[in-house]
Amino acid sequence: MMSIKDIVNNAHSRWMDSDGPESDIVVSSRVRVARNLTGIPFPHMLDTEKAKEVINAVRLALDNEQVKNIAGEPELINLDELSPVDRQILVDKHLISPDMLNNFQNKAVIMWQDGTISIMINEEDHLRIQCFLSGLQLTEAWEIIDQVDNGLEQTLDFAFSEKLGYLTSCPTNVGTGIRASVMLHLPGLKLTKQLGGVLGATGKLGLTVRGLYGEGTEAVGDLFQISNQITLGQSEEEIIDNLISVSRQIMSQEQAARRALYKNRREVIEDRVFRAYGILKHARILSSEEAMRLFSDLRLGLGLKAVTGIRFKLLNELMVKIRPAFMVKIAGKEMSTYERDTFRAGLIRKEFEA
Amino acid sequence: MMSIKDIVNNAHSRWMDSDGPESDIVVSSRVRVARNLTGIPFPHMLDTEKAKEVINAVRLALDNEQVKNIAGEPELINLDELSPVDRQILVDKHLISPDMLNNFQNKAVIMWQDGTISIMINEEDHLRIQCFLSGLQLTEAWEIIDQVDNGLEQTLDFAFSEKLGYLTSCPTNVGTGIRASVMLHLPGLKLTKQLGGVLGATGKLGLTVRGLYGEGTEAVGDLFQISNQITLGQSEEEIIDNLISVSRQIMSQEQAARRALYKNRREVIEDRVFRAYGILKHARILSSEEAMRLFSDLRLGLGLKAVTGIRFKLLNELMVKIRPAFMVKIAGKEMSTYERDTFRAGLIRKEFEA
Repeated sequence: MMSIKDIVNNAHSRWMDSDGPESDIVVSSRVRVARNLTGIPFPHMLDTEKAKEVINAVRLALDNEQVKNIAGEPELINLDELSPVDRQILVDKHLISPDMLNNFQNKAVIMWQDGTISIMINEEDHLRIQCFLSGLQLTEAWEIIDQVDNGLEQTLDFAFSEKLGYLTSCPTNVGTGIRASVMLHLPGLKLTKQLGGVLGATGKLGLTVRGLYGEGTEAVGDLFQISNQITLGQSEEEIIDNLISVSRQIMSQEQAARRALYKNRREVIEDRVFRAYGILKHARILSSEEAMRLFSDLRLGLGLKAVTGIRFKLLNELMVKIRPAFMVKIAGKEMSTYERDTFRAGLIRKEFEA
Repeated sequence: MMSIKDIVNNAHSRWMDSDGPESDIVVSSRVRVARNLTGIPFPHMLDTEKAKEVINAVRLALDNEQVKNIAGEPELINLDELSPVDRQILVDKHLISPDMLNNFQNKAVIMWQDGTISIMINEEDHLRIQCFLSGLQLTEAWEIIDQVDNGLEQTLDFAFSEKLGYLTSCPTNVGTGIRASVMLHLPGLKLTKQLGGVLGATGKLGLTVRGLYGEGTEAVGDLFQISNQITLGQSEEEIIDNLISVSRQIMSQEQAARRALYKNRREVIEDRVFRAYGILKHARILSSEEAMRLFSDLRLGLGLKAVTGIRFKLLNELMVKIRPAFMVKIAGKEMSTYERDTFRAGLIRKEFEA
């Protein structure tokens, strides 16, 4: 079991193992719920004392039988105990939000199982309980969240209205307070120019499409996060089931696109895949954008079984490893863009030579 | 020793061994002289009977002591005995001229030493005697040509004017009838944007710059043929010495450019070289143009010793092997552009995996 120190020193996260179902297209599943404590102002209104009170209350709530039934020891760390680089790595690993990077005072994070389960404390809400699993496992993630939530609720008094449900800092989360998302790899739809249509239709079903690092980020490496927009008026199960059903639909469209490409333009696809492989193995300078593009091509090749001997896991880990923060961690120094691009190429080359 | 049949079945030519001096920049040296028989019209005016008379006269002239002193048995073949593909391969190997491809009646070629020495019969002139050596060996090539020329002259009566020298079909060849050329690989000058200046200056020194396949062809793969423009008013030795001296000057400029690039932008150059290597090793579709570009990058890497374990020889042979004619020969069938591009990638991959 990794400690938080290990988590920031290691690019790996459990969901990267790609041992979940449908891992060739659904990279990961994530569910989080927003919870707030009754009688305490929302985090943006908190003074230091009150903020510490929240952290302390959550810490104490961990000492409960139902919470202890969750596998693994939880570890709590205050974000101001971490270096800026370590905080950035937690963002890159999707364990804290980008907002917490420079706004880390009086905030904390709790993690179980190498970050598979985590709780951000005093982000937008007092608690953001998150579960991150490999492949398409939204129901499983929800069940874990539900267990943590229920366990904590035995001690904590969550702000709840009979009429509205859970009360949250931002009205878009009121109700269930749930946000479920899947990270999908959709190169087939992109190459067959169906992406706009498919994602457009997704938007009309009450779902949101975002890039890899959430709101406002570009889709890099053909990776798309799809999540529910509505938290009110539907049960958690309905929200999850709706997202699963849409994900399965997109998955089958992606699969059809990949099959068609491989059947009709086999060499074109193989050329794309193997060039990516050749460049990753040999390049001396690689920008983050190009690397992500090449990972996408290679990931497609793994999905089509055109390439063997490489694991999805490696590509998942590299997505964290090649980000500036993790490279600074490995190099032990700040680097210019040029230095980073050569360092990145070296890192990647080493992984593919191994 | 290869027969003509072997020559068209094998991409190799002796000059490709790159065992000549300065082979990292001067790929090959070539000298040819134009000769015509007195009292017989120039080839474009010849009827079949007279054309055969020329071929026969040259054949008989081979039976001479001085000619026999040239190492190796000469072999003569009439071009109409060869298939169109084989004729194209001889063009690709620079052993007959592109003009002879579709205009092959009553024409022949003689070769010694795998085509190192050759004589085209009834091309623009009755005889075009050529010697093709590895690296910078213009003087050596000229000495061989001189020996063949002198040997043949013991039997053949070459058209010669005291005032003008050797008479040729085209006035630009009158005098010495000599054309000496070097094939230079100049990626350093290209990358440092000095190419225009250097080649412009070359033009002002009475030399001509052309692409790989002679007049009117584009420079592919950063390969440039530099040859004398003047055949009259200078001795053969002066013409050769002038070309050697200019070649050495361009060589030292190219060397300086490479050193500067490698010193100031080492990773940029290595990135270029190794990407080329990675793509050549892995691509599934390669056009001839892209392959030549990648060969150039890799050749630069070999010159800089950034890459090892690959020989210039392989790249030289591949320049012939990846041309449509040779691929048709290997595949045993005509191919579409798409089929050729995938076949080419397969051929190259095989060479680099070996």
